Amino acid sequence: MKICVAGLGLIGGSLCMALGRAGFMPDGWNRSPAPVEYALKNAIIGGVATDFSLYDVVFVALPPRASADFICGTAFKDGAVVADICGVKQFIERAVYSQLRNFYYVGTHPMAGKEVSGIKNACADLFDRANMVITTCPATHAPALELIKELTRKMGFARIVECSAEVHDRKIAYTSQLAHVVSNAYVKDGEIAGCAGFTGGSFQDMTRIAGVDEGVWSELYLLNSANLSGRIDTLIKNLSVIKSAVEKGDANALAALLKEGRAIFTRPTENLADDDIKVTRLK
Amino acid sequence: MKICVAGLGLIGGSLCMALGRAGFMPDGWNRSPAPVEYALKNAIIGGVATDFSLYDVVFVALPPRASADFICGTAFKDGAVVADICGVKQFIERAVYSQLRNFYYVGTHPMAGKEVSGIKNACADLFDRANMVITTCPATHAPALELIKELTRKMGFARIVECSAEVHDRKIAYTSQLAHVVSNAYVKDGEIAGCAGFTGGSFQDMTRIAGVDEGVWSELYLLNSANLSGRIDTLIKNLSVIKSAVEKGDANALAALLKEGRAIFTRPTENLADDDIKVTRLK
Repeated sequence: MKICVAGLGLIGGSLCMALGRAGFMPDGWNRSPAPVEYALKNAIIGGVATDFSLYDVVFVALPPRASADFICGTAFKDGAVVADICGVKQFIERAVYSQLRNFYYVGTHPMAGKEVSGIKNACADLFDRANMVITTCPATHAPALELIKELTRKMGFARIVECSAEVHDRKIAYTSQLAHVVSNAYVKDGEIAGCAGFTGGSFQDMTRIAGVDEGVWSELYLLNSANLSGRIDTLIKNLSVIKSAVEKGDANALAALLKEGRAIFTRPTENLADDDIKVTRLK
Repeated sequence: MKICVAGLGLIGGSLCMALGRAGFMPDGWNRSPAPVEYALKNAIIGGVATDFSLYDVVFVALPPRASADFICGTAFKDGAVVADICGVKQFIERAVYSQLRNFYYVGTHPMAGKEVSGIKNACADLFDRANMVITTCPATHAPALELIKELTRKMGFARIVECSAEVHDRKIAYTSQLAHVVSNAYVKDGEIAGCAGFTGGSFQDMTRIAGVDEGVWSELYLLNSANLSGRIDTLIKNLSVIKSAVEKGDANALAALLKEGRAIFTRPTENLADDDIKVTRLK
C-alpha cells in the first residue's frame, strides 16, 4: 500500500510521523519547498511525491479551499482512497461530489492540534489519545471507509467518531471554533496591561489559543459561518444573563445560573448522547 | 512565631502544608469540625486553635463575608499580623479599616487554585511557581508587610505582586472572574450533547472551571460587580464584532480582527506594564 500526504504542516507532518511509526512510511508533497526539505532531512517522509496517480491512499492536509482545489484538480489512481483532514466538512464534501471522480473520498478530522503550527512542531504522538472524526454520506465506499479506519487505529488514535459532514460542522463550531473566537476576543481588553501577576491557570487556559493563524481560522469560520454565528450568539446570550444578575446584585439568580452550568458540566458529556454520532473506542 | 490558619479548605489547607514544609507548623480552625479532624489526623496542623489571641500571625482563609466578620469580630493579640486570602480585596479592606483595631492587617491573594475544593485536595506545593498578590494602602504597617512577604517567600511562591486593593479588584475581574463566567456560560449550549467526540484541548480548557462552587463564586462576583460587569461587557462587544464579520462573510475584516488578538497575545503581557503594580521575583 503506497501512501502520500499532500501538505506538510503540523497535521500533515504529524500524520506522516504517525504513519511512519506504524510501518507505513509515506511520500510527501507541499506547496512550498522548505517543509519538504525538512521532512526528507528528518526522515519524516520516504520520498517526494510528484505523480499522485502512484498512490493507493492520499491524505490531503491543506487548508479547506486548497484541499478542495487539490482533490478536484489532481489525477489520482483509479480506486484510490483520498481523505482530507479539514476542520470543515460540508464544504469539501460538496466540492468532491459535485464532479465525476475515479477515486473514493472519505472525510476525516483529527481532533488534535497545538497552538503552534508548521512541520517543525509535528510529532508522531500528536494523535495518541485523540479522537478521529470520520464523516460519511450515502455515497461513501464501505471498503475505503474501512481502510481509513484501519489506518486511524494504527496511527494511535483513541477513538473513531463517525457522523455526517453536517453533524461534524455543527459540533465543531461549538467545541473548537467558538473556543478560538472566545480566546481571541478575551485578550482585547485594556485590563490585560500588567495583568501577568494576577493570572493562574484559568487565564492561561482562556487565552492559550488567542494567537492562532488568522488566515487558517478566518477561512474555517467563513466556511461554517451559520453554525459559528449561532454558537457565538448563544454564548453572548448566556453571558448577558449572568451580567444582568451581577448588575442587579441578585445573589439567588446568580447562584442559580452558576449552578445550572455546573450541573451540565458535571453530567458527563458522553451521556448527553446524540443518535447521529457513532463512537468506537480503539483502546 | 506562632501561626494560625482560620478556614481549612483548599487554600487554607494548602497554606498550612506550605507553612509546615517551611518549618512553621500552624494551628488550625474551621467553622465545621470535619476538616479540622482531617487536618489533625494528617498532620496538616499542629493543633486546634481556640483562643486566637495566642498567635503572632493569623491567616484567614474563609469566604469574603465570613472573613470580614471573622477579622472584625475576633480578639487578636496586640500587634498580631492578620492576613486574609480573599479573591476580592476592597470589600475586606473597607471592613477592617472601618473600626478600631489592635492588630496589623495585610491583604493577600494567592494566585493558585484547583477546579476542586476542600482540604482533601490541598497540597504543600499548590503555591510553587504561583504569584502572591499582596494589597497595601497608606495604613499598612511596614514590618507587618515584610513579615507576610517573608512567609510568602518561604511558602514557595515564585513572585510577589504588590498593589492597591482597587487595582487588585480591577485586574482579578479580568484574569479570574471573567474566565469563570465564560466557562460557565460556554457549557449552556444544546450542541454540548454528543460533543465529546469533537473535543480537543481547546474545549477542555474553555470549560474546565465551569463547575466551580456557585456559593463561593457568586459572592466573589457580587462583591466586585462593577468591575466584573465591565469585563463581561467588553467581551460581549468583542464577540459581537467577530460575529458580525462572520455573518457578513467579510474575510478581510475577520482576519484583521483575529490578527489584532494575536498581536496582543504574542506581546508578552509583562511588557504591557501598569505602574500601579510592583512585581518581585522570588526565584
